[in-house]
Amino acid sequence: VRADAQRNYDRILAAAEVAFTHHGADASLEEIARQAEVGSATLHRHFPSRQALLNAVFHDRTEVLCAKAHELTAKTGPEEALAAWLQEVATHVTTARGLAESLLQGARDAGPAVNDSSCYRMIADAGDDLLRRAREVNAVRPDVSIADLVTLVNGISLATEQAADAPAEAARLLTLALTGIRPA
Amino acid sequence: VRADAQRNYDRILAAAEVAFTHHGADASLEEIARQAEVGSATLHRHFPSRQALLNAVFHDRTEVLCAKAHELTAKTGPEEALAAWLQEVATHVTTARGLAESLLQGARDAGPAVNDSSCYRMIADAGDDLLRRAREVNAVRPDVSIADLVTLVNGISLATEQAADAPAEAARLLTLALTGIRPA
Repeated sequence: VRADAQRNYDRILAAAEVAFTHHGADASLEEIARQAEVGSATLHRHFPSRQALLNAVFHDRTEVLCAKAHELTAKTGPEEALAAWLQEVATHVTTARGLAESLLQGARDAGPAVNDSSCYRMIADAGDDLLRRAREVNAVRPDVSIADLVTLVNGISLATEQAADAPAEAARLLTLALTGIRPA
Repeated sequence: VRADAQRNYDRILAAAEVAFTHHGADASLEEIARQAEVGSATLHRHFPSRQALLNAVFHDRTEVLCAKAHELTAKTGPEEALAAWLQEVATHVTTARGLAESLLQGARDAGPAVNDSSCYRMIADAGDDLLRRAREVNAVRPDVSIADLVTLVNGISLATEQAADAPAEAARLLTLALTGIRPA
């Protein structure tokens, strides 16, 4: 029975990853259950909410981004580390529409009520460390929050997702948004 | 017959405005025809393509934005005029999802092939004047294009459309993107 449950869990996760990546965070749960060859009740037993399924699907990518934040902190200056990390976030969300929408939702709902294991909370915590260091060297205005930066990254990803070279276009516009339009 | 045709045209436009504003640029054309109480053939006779219908629906708002560009040019400095105008664009697209998507499409396809009467072309021409003036006083880097700025505005609108106070949030993030994250 446990092996069966594990198999169902894995199948749902695999089907959900395809659906969320291509159709976004509001992909049909019924279609995910059908692709996974399980009933809707089984899906809901494993994942009581859409958000729980989204967090499970994007958990590994989120952990990669958090690890990247620590790596950049160790190896480069605070200003470069924050910019390079936001570019990493942009690359990840540009290739996974559901992740962008999920993070935007998290940024909107940000506050003590947010589930601590959500992808947004993990990203925001990792980003907050980078942001704090960048503020300490006066590289970021004090009124800029990590929610602002995550929202900007996701907006740029949504706006460029149909561009010919979406990741490069997102990177270029993110640099523009972080540095502003005035000459250096 | 001409009065009949005009009535159908007006009905289609009214139904399309509701649909595009609320459901975005890919709202169902069949549903628009149904709401307008005309057949699909009639809709296609008046508007041979989705883009033609989008341009017709958003033509008036686009003209308002173009007039605003001229007004700002006359009454304020080049840098302030560009920023204020982009904020006007943000306000308009934040309240009309279909306009945001339509402009993004236009910015992607920008080039000599773009239909001269498209909303994007009208916006881009008006914005180009403001951008050129701002460049002349060294307020904007030479590599920043009007397509970049329109894409940023639309990305921010898409990312904030579900925020509690979407227009204010879009305005705040647009200012951030135009000025960059560093302290002044």
